[in-house]
Amino acid sequence: MALRASLRNKCGLSGLLSQWSSCSSHGRVCVSPVLVAQQRNNSTSPKLKVDFDQSTGVAVMCLQSPPVNSLSLDFLTEISIAVEKLEMDKSCRGLIITSSQPKVFSAGLDIMEMYRKSPEHCGEFWKAVQEMWLKLYGSNMVTIAAINGSSPAGGCLMSLTCDYRIMADNPRYTIGLNETQLGIVAPFWFKDTMINTVGHRTTEIALELGLLYKPSEALTVGLVDQLVPEDQVLTTATQTMTKWLSIPDHARQITKSMMRKPVIDKLMSNREADIHHFVSFITKESIQKSLGMYLEMLKKRKS
Amino acid sequence: MALRASLRNKCGLSGLLSQWSSCSSHGRVCVSPVLVAQQRNNSTSPKLKVDFDQSTGVAVMCLQSPPVNSLSLDFLTEISIAVEKLEMDKSCRGLIITSSQPKVFSAGLDIMEMYRKSPEHCGEFWKAVQEMWLKLYGSNMVTIAAINGSSPAGGCLMSLTCDYRIMADNPRYTIGLNETQLGIVAPFWFKDTMINTVGHRTTEIALELGLLYKPSEALTVGLVDQLVPEDQVLTTATQTMTKWLSIPDHARQITKSMMRKPVIDKLMSNREADIHHFVSFITKESIQKSLGMYLEMLKKRKS
Amino acid sequence: MALRASLRNKCGLSGLLSQWSSCSSHGRVCVSPVLVAQQRNNSTSPKLKVDFDQSTGVAVMCLQSPPVNSLSLDFLTEISIAVEKLEMDKSCRGLIITSSQPKVFSAGLDIMEMYRKSPEHCGEFWKAVQEMWLKLYGSNMVTIAAINGSSPAGGCLMSLTCDYRIMADNPRYTIGLNETQLGIVAPFWFKDTMINTVGHRTTEIALELGLLYKPSEALTVGLVDQLVPEDQVLTTATQTMTKWLSIPDHARQITKSMMRKPVIDKLMSNREADIHHFVSFITKESIQKSLGMYLEMLKKRKS
Repeated sequence: MALRASLRNKCGLSGLLSQWSSCSSHGRVCVSPVLVAQQRNNSTSPKLKVDFDQSTGVAVMCLQSPPVNSLSLDFLTEISIAVEKLEMDKSCRGLIITSSQPKVFSAGLDIMEMYRKSPEHCGEFWKAVQEMWLKLYGSNMVTIAAINGSSPAGGCLMSLTCDYRIMADNPRYTIGLNETQLGIVAPFWFKDTMINTVGHRTTEIALELGLLYKPSEALTVGLVDQLVPEDQVLTTATQTMTKWLSIPDHARQITKSMMRKPVIDKLMSNREADIHHFVSFITKESIQKSLGMYLEMLKKRKS
Repeated sequence: MALRASLRNKCGLSGLLSQWSSCSSHGRVCVSPVLVAQQRNNSTSPKLKVDFDQSTGVAVMCLQSPPVNSLSLDFLTEISIAVEKLEMDKSCRGLIITSSQPKVFSAGLDIMEMYRKSPEHCGEFWKAVQEMWLKLYGSNMVTIAAINGSSPAGGCLMSLTCDYRIMADNPRYTIGLNETQLGIVAPFWFKDTMINTVGHRTTEIALELGLLYKPSEALTVGLVDQLVPEDQVLTTATQTMTKWLSIPDHARQITKSMMRKPVIDKLMSNREADIHHFVSFITKESIQKSLGMYLEMLKKRKS
Repeated sequence: MALRASLRNKCGLSGLLSQWSSCSSHGRVCVSPVLVAQQRNNSTSPKLKVDFDQSTGVAVMCLQSPPVNSLSLDFLTEISIAVEKLEMDKSCRGLIITSSQPKVFSAGLDIMEMYRKSPEHCGEFWKAVQEMWLKLYGSNMVTIAAINGSSPAGGCLMSLTCDYRIMADNPRYTIGLNETQLGIVAPFWFKDTMINTVGHRTTEIALELGLLYKPSEALTVGLVDQLVPEDQVLTTATQTMTKWLSIPDHARQITKSMMRKPVIDKLMSNREADIHHFVSFITKESIQKSLGMYLEMLKKRKS
């Protein structure tokens, strides 16, 4: 499985790079404070738009996978590659993650990737989830989540990897690791990331109940750092980035690594076991039935 | 000592099981939202009343050991056996712990079990304290503390093992690990349980000063989750339980175990050393004198 | 290096002891609630004034190294020796740390000790910083910081070692570990001390941005415990001390040790590596340039 995943990543890489070109985003337009003339290293796949402004050293990564930015295997791979590409570009110092889809930042992991799929596929998928988390939680760049919509489960995790979280102050949006509500379980590194953000007790109650927080509640418990009106999420992220970039990179990076390394190391030394654990769990018939019922419920809600 | 304790537990078990019958509770009546017709696995010892409602899957365990639910060796053993019995009953999904004694949830560990007693007895007693904590903190059931009175020291610990804490909003009641006030020390697993609930700094200051919090203060620091008028403590616990039981058991249980396992494992792998440590400390003449003075003070307060 | 540092400590000790005599403090007068007749073990060096009141068991250590109580190698050594001396005096149960310098508690580590200095000197200096932290964070005495002025970087660290922090409610004062602002990095044990005080997330954001908090902000995040008008800082510290000393020493000390031992042990088993790490970092040309620019900036600010 590890080999297949590794091959896929290679194929994914070349496939993605060839796809990247300037195509328009779907749904809500992703406004980027970047003039075309200043752009470099920009890239747009159908699902991901990356605008890098060389004059500021800041890239804006816009999730644009309709309808709700579900994190599929392909999408996760695209994200990881895009982040790695920016990471290797020394002139890129900051990354803002946001969404072009209306009302949603990201709906989280794509359940279709784990429903009635082979163990091999599930393992490959999980490896891609790990990869996205490792790349973002361990990034040397300043990372800011511009959460302009709901952000459950994997969407919340992606936000939690960032250095700072700004959320649209719209009471219809929610954010949280709600896995238990679906009958599945957030793994230890989701948990560790949340503990590092909101502490042990809030994490315990949130994960046991699969809580989804309204923005005001999320601010109270510390799941997000700031609320602003929806149309100011991205501009506030850009202003906040300027403040973060005033700190010498090397000192900030060493400090960030010191804070996050223990939790990153824990997954790094347990990746295969974690994949194995996930595959054993998710392919259980009882869990598959839970997922089936959840998908059925989603269908009914739509119609 | 381990052997004696083990024998005692066995004797305690048979003794307890034969005692269990429906006798009335002392003092304040323990109102249980359970119809007799629906009951199964109910049991009442003179000290402990357990009402299990099969229709809801919820048991209410009522502490009724006059005058103040002091946790003696016998009482702790009863509690552990009752919890284990419910734990093994797959139809029991939730446990509410409350008190029938006026003004008090539990006054904590019974000091008479450690004052002028043999090292063997102290060791046996401490093992029973460990056992109660292990059973409750590691329970697969949803556990809710309906704290309808003061809850110092061991009473606070028992509350802290639960998934959720609802306290009567009566400023005369207090809750906290106040061991240092008595000249004794909360052991590392009391401390770890408290850190997991209120964080490191609040624990440090609370344990060093042996702080007892009023309900409003306990809510502020996170030692309890909710305050309600005294006559609504048990009904609120029942309503809250319904919410918790809407989460799939298996996902909630795995999550709970993931959150608590490190702290449980720490005691599990150090039980004998912890008992030895406690016995060495508590049998010191200086500590015995402290306990004696405290008991003298309690006597004077009564008269 | 270890040998030299050890020799220096010895020399420092005898040197300091011979210097100690009752000389007046510079700048702001350090008011001590101590009658001369009751004093014992008092000592005053040009930089440090220690008033020990035998009747209360409380010592007041007043930092009086003009202009801003910068923690030089000599000053750190004096502080460590003074703390050790009090620690060994069984009649001394509490220590209040405060400043006689106007507007500042301590400006933190003296940058001149690490700017254009030999690796040996930097190592010796760092060992003295470690020693100060180990002595204070691991002290058996009740320690209270009476923060009557700004307290950046090492000054903040010194405050964080105490059991309780009372700060002057003057919005011109700030407190925080602002090392990254200078292009340097707070080491793991600064970080651990701060996590133990304000939790992981607040520490992450504070250290990455090198945040300096106003007193009201410091109170909100838990960096200090109490704000009082400037002229009441020391009297409040004295009153608070009385409350802490009402707890039996042995129980409080065991509890304090239990809370702090893991973090202390981490440095104890990594002292040499930590010194080596610091020396390698601080002697880098790029870091030296950063320090040079910072010193230049300080000079300009003065003139």
